[in-house]
Parts: sequence; C-alpha cells; structure tokens
Amino acid sequence: MRIYLDCIGCFVRQALDAARHATDDEQIHKEVLRRVLRMAGELDLSLSPPAIGQQIHRLIRELTGNDDPYRQAKCRFNNLALRLYPDLRKRIISSSSPLETAIRLAIAGNIIDLGVKTSILENEIEGVIRDCLTADFDSLAVKAFGDAVSKAERVLYLADNAGEIVLDRLLIEQLPVEKVTVAVKGSPVINDATMEDALLAGLPRIVEVIDNGSDAPGTILETCSETFRGRFEDADLIVAKGQGNYETLSDVDKKIFFILKVKCPVIARELGCEIGRMILQKSRAFSDIGELVKEAE
Amino acid sequence: MRIYLDCIGCFVRQALDAARHATDDEQIHKEVLRRVLRMAGELDLSLSPPAIGQQIHRLIRELTGNDDPYRQAKCRFNNLALRLYPDLRKRIISSSSPLETAIRLAIAGNIIDLGVKTSILENEIEGVIRDCLTADFDSLAVKAFGDAVSKAERVLYLADNAGEIVLDRLLIEQLPVEKVTVAVKGSPVINDATMEDALLAGLPRIVEVIDNGSDAPGTILETCSETFRGRFEDADLIVAKGQGNYETLSDVDKKIFFILKVKCPVIARELGCEIGRMILQKSRAFSDIGELVKEAE
Repeated sequence: MRIYLDCIGCFVRQALDAARHATDDEQIHKEVLRRVLRMAGELDLSLSPPAIGQQIHRLIRELTGNDDPYRQAKCRFNNLALRLYPDLRKRIISSSSPLETAIRLAIAGNIIDLGVKTSILENEIEGVIRDCLTADFDSLAVKAFGDAVSKAERVLYLADNAGEIVLDRLLIEQLPVEKVTVAVKGSPVINDATMEDALLAGLPRIVEVIDNGSDAPGTILETCSETFRGRFEDADLIVAKGQGNYETLSDVDKKIFFILKVKCPVIARELGCEIGRMILQKSRAFSDIGELVKEAE
Repeated sequence: MRIYLDCIGCFVRQALDAARHATDDEQIHKEVLRRVLRMAGELDLSLSPPAIGQQIHRLIRELTGNDDPYRQAKCRFNNLALRLYPDLRKRIISSSSPLETAIRLAIAGNIIDLGVKTSILENEIEGVIRDCLTADFDSLAVKAFGDAVSKAERVLYLADNAGEIVLDRLLIEQLPVEKVTVAVKGSPVINDATMEDALLAGLPRIVEVIDNGSDAPGTILETCSETFRGRFEDADLIVAKGQGNYETLSDVDKKIFFILKVKCPVIARELGCEIGRMILQKSRAFSDIGELVKEAE
C-alpha cells in the first residue's frame, strides 16, 4: 500500500513524539522536526508508510544519539500486558470458542501502537480489551483462519508491538505451536517488538522465534535479512499483525491473514470500514487460489 | 502565545485539508504539501500559530487559485446554525440565566472550527450543544463577564468562525447591543467568518459590524487595518472568541474575555485544562488592575 498524503502530517507528529521519547533537549526536538520536514518535502510517494517511517526513525536515532527511544515505553507496556496475561488466559480457556476469544484479545493488544497515537493510557488498553471481547466480529473469518492454520505446514506469525506481543502469545498458544514461528523486528523502531520483548513475553519457551533483520515498522521484504526472506518464502501461511504489516504486505502475493485494529483514517479508507474496527482478513492470494480451483473444476 | 512544536504536524494536516477544499486536483494537493513542508522547515518559532496559519493559507490560495477554499463549508455551517437558531433562542429566553445559557451556546458554536478538525458532522454539533448546556461551568466567571460588560462603554466582540457566528448572535442579543461592535475577518481564511457570514447571521440588523482588514485566523494587530486597530484601542472591553483569538491576544495588555471551547492539546496545556473544556476567562490585564487598586488602597 502506498503512502497517502494524509500520512505526512502524521509522520511529522510521530517524529516529534519519537524525539521527545529520545531526549528532553528541545533544541534536538527542533532539529529533528526541521530535518523531517525537509525529508518529507522530498518524499517518494510511491513508498509504503513504513518505508518512510523507517527513514524517519533512522534519522531520529542518528540525531538524538538514542538507539531505542521507546525502550521505557516498551518495558511499561510489556509489564502491563504481563499483569493482564493470567486472567486473560483463563478467560480464553473457559470461553465457548477459545480461538475466537484469543483472536479478539490479540486484536485488542494492537491498540498498543505508539506510531498512531502519541500516548496510550493503561485504562484505555483495559477498555479496548473489554470492547474487543464483545464487539461484532466475523465468525466466518475465524473459521477460515482456523482452517488455514490446520492446513498449513509452516505458519510464520509476524509480531507487531511490544506489550501487544504478550497478547499475541495468548493467540499463539491456541495454534499448533510446533508449526509456528514468530518473527520480531531486527532492531528497534518506534515501539515495535524485538527479540528482547519476545523473551519477556516468554515466547521462545513455546515457539521458535526469529528476527527479520530489519528496522522498518512493518515487513518490507527487501530490507529484511536473507534468512528471514527464506522463511517467509517457505511458510505456507503468514499471520501479519498490525497496521504496519498490512501496509507493507497487502499487495504481496502470499497467503496472509491480517489481524489488526483499525486506528487511523487512512487504513479505515483502505479497508472500507470505520476506525476502531477489528480486522481478521485474508489476503487476495486466497481468493485467487479459490478462483483457480473453481476454474479448474 | 508562541507556536508549539506540536502545532507543525497539525499545520501540515490543515494545509492538505485546505488544498482539498480548494480543488480536486491531486497534483496541486501534492505541490501544496511540498511547499508547506518546506515553509514549515524554515519557520520562525517565535510567531503565534495564527501568524503561521496566515502564511500557509495565503500560499494555498495562491497555489490553488481559489480565494476562498472553505466557501461551501462556511455556507453549510451557516445554514445549519440558522436552522438551530430559533429553538436555541427560545431556550435562552426561557432559561433561569439567559446570559449564562447564551454564553454556553456561543461556546458550543466554537466547535465549528475547520482549522482544528478535518471535518465536523452536523450531529456532532448538535451533540456539543447538548453537552455545553449541561457541562460544569464557572458561574463566577459569568457574573464577572456580565459586570464587565455593564461597566464597559465600548465592547468589541471578535467573531471567530462561520456558522459559529450565528450562535454568537444569541450571546450578542443578551448584551447591551448599543455599545457592542462585532468584528469579522477582512478576507477569507479557513472557515473564519467574514462580512458575508455576519450578513447571513443577520448581525448588522442588531449591532455595528466591522471587519479587521486581515486574513489571519486570529487577531494579529499588526496585520489589521488602521481603522480596526483604532477601534481595538478605543474599546474598553474585548470579547475574543475562539482559539485563534486566544493564541494571538493572550499576551496583549488589554481587558479581554476569552470565550472558547478547548479543542487541541496545545491550548489545553496553555490553559491547564482538558480538551473539551468550556472557557470564559479574563485576560491578565484585569488582575493587574485589581492588584494596582489593591496596592493603592
């Protein structure tokens, strides 16, 4: 998905947020803004939003000398999610459809996205969890997801943010873990989950965890490591979590389930829905295969 | 009040909004954004937000060749407010404190601000009116406002936006109209009210209406006409409506009542309150005079 002009104002806000996370020095905040504005004025508008985000956050890390501006925020959200985890797990186990409940909670976790919002309050997260457990949801999509996972031999689960990754664990526990690999980012960008967060979430104890070798807030295959690209190629099902992965993979010809909460007007427009909606959506590659099978019959 | 770094991302969004109001040509939208980003990268950060807004919207009018991008939107909001006017007027007359009810409604009207928000739905405005009629409000400030108006000989009421100006009329009708002059903008900027909107609101039938000779989305005295500056100087009470007037006049040494609804985090921080709050607040000149009197006693 290409950047919309609407994304640019949002990037400017995001750059200031990141600069403030990195340092209290207002001179540096100003310098970051000036440089990001200049960069934004010369943007290649054929890129995806995370490709631009990658450039901007590299610049911010360079200008602030802070290689992980969101470290504290990530830690805070991991701890919050770990506090919520035991109760949420019980709720899944005792629910009439554990898979659906786990998907709902993984989507709720996607609210922990500091790319879209400047700050998120803890009680806001708990409110979103409550809402996601009861909001309208496509049960046919849940069934299709369950079927796709059953059929697949190698599932690659692309994690999104720190904190959120603890709620992803709830969903991963409902999958056949022996065939699931979780991928995190290769190095810090915004509050995206890295190996450190996967470790805190306890994921390596239940599934294989790899990193994608990239610092893009999404999955830009060309900037990922060769190892990761091989694993992506080999997987017969991708589970892509969050807006950044949707933005970078929506045009990729691969069987992908996108799982996210719609948090900005641009994604709402792309998906033809309202902000706030819970999304569990197959990529086009599924229907193409369906059509081919139909044609062959 | 000086610009905050937070304002810059908001200006970028506002520029795109204005470009879209002005033309459907996406090439022009892109060009507007590029030019505004370049301008924003070289900003004088000692200016007030409306001073920057003035420069940006001049550039947009020049690039799009549209001298009033918000013409249709202004017309729509005037018509909506005129439809609501008769019922709201009855409500004021039958209320236990007509002045307070009228102030509440004038504040509610301040939601019609397309500088802060990309779009406003009609039912949103009706919701804000309902909320403003019942929300907590400082009745001491209402009394102080009433007293200040009674004591003043020449009241200058600085209108803010189209549509809103119809709700301002409800408040102006509760004032001693013979000593009130209403000022609108000299020429179009965002959805700020000009003489055309004052006429549609029927204001010249009840008070004197002048324009300030300026195209700033606030009151930057240096860019106003000499006539207006004279009237500002002569007035012994200014009623300043909306965020733009607060941003440009909060440091001016003059007896001013600011009337507005807080709609953005920067103004909320300046005023030390939450977004959504209704504000009826005296300028510092009032308390300075109070202190001088006290010292003299």
